[in-house]
Amino acid sequence: MLPSEVQAILEEMREERVRGASYLAKKGAEAYITLAGLLSGDELLEALNELSREIKGVNPAMASLYNLTRFIPHSPNSLIVKTKAEEFIKLSDEAKREIGNIGSELIDEGDVIITHSFSSTVLEIFKVAIKKGKRFKVILTESAPDYEGLALAKELEAIGVPFEVITDAQLGLFAKNATFALVGADNITQDGSVINKAGTYLLALACHDNGVPFYAAAESFKIHPELEAGEVEIVERKFKRNHFLIRNYLFDVTPWRYVRGIITELGILVPPKEL
Amino acid sequence: MLPSEVQAILEEMREERVRGASYLAKKGAEAYITLAGLLSGDELLEALNELSREIKGVNPAMASLYNLTRFIPHSPNSLIVKTKAEEFIKLSDEAKREIGNIGSELIDEGDVIITHSFSSTVLEIFKVAIKKGKRFKVILTESAPDYEGLALAKELEAIGVPFEVITDAQLGLFAKNATFALVGADNITQDGSVINKAGTYLLALACHDNGVPFYAAAESFKIHPELEAGEVEIVERKFKRNHFLIRNYLFDVTPWRYVRGIITELGILVPPKEL
Repeated sequence: MLPSEVQAILEEMREERVRGASYLAKKGAEAYITLAGLLSGDELLEALNELSREIKGVNPAMASLYNLTRFIPHSPNSLIVKTKAEEFIKLSDEAKREIGNIGSELIDEGDVIITHSFSSTVLEIFKVAIKKGKRFKVILTESAPDYEGLALAKELEAIGVPFEVITDAQLGLFAKNATFALVGADNITQDGSVINKAGTYLLALACHDNGVPFYAAAESFKIHPELEAGEVEIVERKFKRNHFLIRNYLFDVTPWRYVRGIITELGILVPPKEL
Repeated sequence: MLPSEVQAILEEMREERVRGASYLAKKGAEAYITLAGLLSGDELLEALNELSREIKGVNPAMASLYNLTRFIPHSPNSLIVKTKAEEFIKLSDEAKREIGNIGSELIDEGDVIITHSFSSTVLEIFKVAIKKGKRFKVILTESAPDYEGLALAKELEAIGVPFEVITDAQLGLFAKNATFALVGADNITQDGSVINKAGTYLLALACHDNGVPFYAAAESFKIHPELEAGEVEIVERKFKRNHFLIRNYLFDVTPWRYVRGIITELGILVPPKEL
């Protein structure tokens, strides 16, 4: 049985409905730090096994959680556990900053960038580009049914990036107006598929059909070392409109052949040539 | 100056926000009938010129209106005008019935058909298929921002067709579960493009990527004899969500290479082989 302070963090992770894979991994790292502050020795060792199982169980398809549990050593020494969990958080912050640097270099003066849903990594790229003095425009979707696109619109308003909001169904109409597409990712599978908010795949298809490059931005810890696209179980949150139940899978799968590159802190990964 | 009874019909046509190309063409035919009941001789001839101009002006890109004005002879004989306008309405009703017959033959027992938005022609096909005793399932989109998909859901409920409603952004996820896709059309351009509710193009791309045949159903009077896809001016109706203005083009353009066939009352038109 895990200490109640750790249980509370796990519960928070399970309840989270807005923030994605980066946030949850950092929360998971906090859970390890909290545990290491409470237990040591054999008790810690036993609790670590349980905690790692629980963290993976929050979302078995989420690479960031899986990779976090692999990063943390199962040691009876609480200092080692704490240090590694803190290192994970530090590396995670550094990764986002570095993705901002690398990604912002893709943006040229006057570019039009189309995106879907709200990714804090994509926003970081926009922020760094603005700091570098670049002027560009963003086309973004409302992202029904939760409208997280409007949250991105607010952020862009705050940093002075001009933008246009479109309905999700217009991705095909507006893709051809973009210099390139840039989205976040919840997960990159071992076979290079981008798992991201439902609709991302449609954007990628429209980009492909119109010769517009499609990029995803993701910290390397979002790359799952084992899962293939077909094995990812996609979370669904049905809702009601009028008296109708609406199907609502959160993510879809964009195959690597439609991706020009995945912007990570290690550089831009490109699909193998034979694709 | 057209008689006020005719002006009223034109005003109704301009104000229409839900129903599409078939409905507007029939309304236009009613305007001709009304005019022929009020005027004759040179007065009629002059008014016919004005009415044809006004009807085309309701939506210059709409083939059904353009073709209606070509169908009605500009004659001083009010009986000829009335008879031809009535014939247009009769042919239009017959066309829809015949499309129901032809289209329902595409549906096999146990099929899953994916559609987008609400087309009365597509609904007619479903109704005839049910009358023929076929059992099938429909996947349909909400069709934001006006949710006409929910109106289709109600109709399907009434005739006992099982269905699932999805958000527009999930078209890519659900297309691969379908036997085929079937949508209506507001317009078929001379180069074979299907102009239909925004999002249709995304559905066609997802179908293409997953080897799912994509069909459109349209009366032949929706085929524009002159306009090419690039010349169609797409109507936009922006709206506000929170304090953000949302872009909202009503239609998008699906190139003929993604269309398996266009179901008309004359048979199923297929794209030329070189596409």
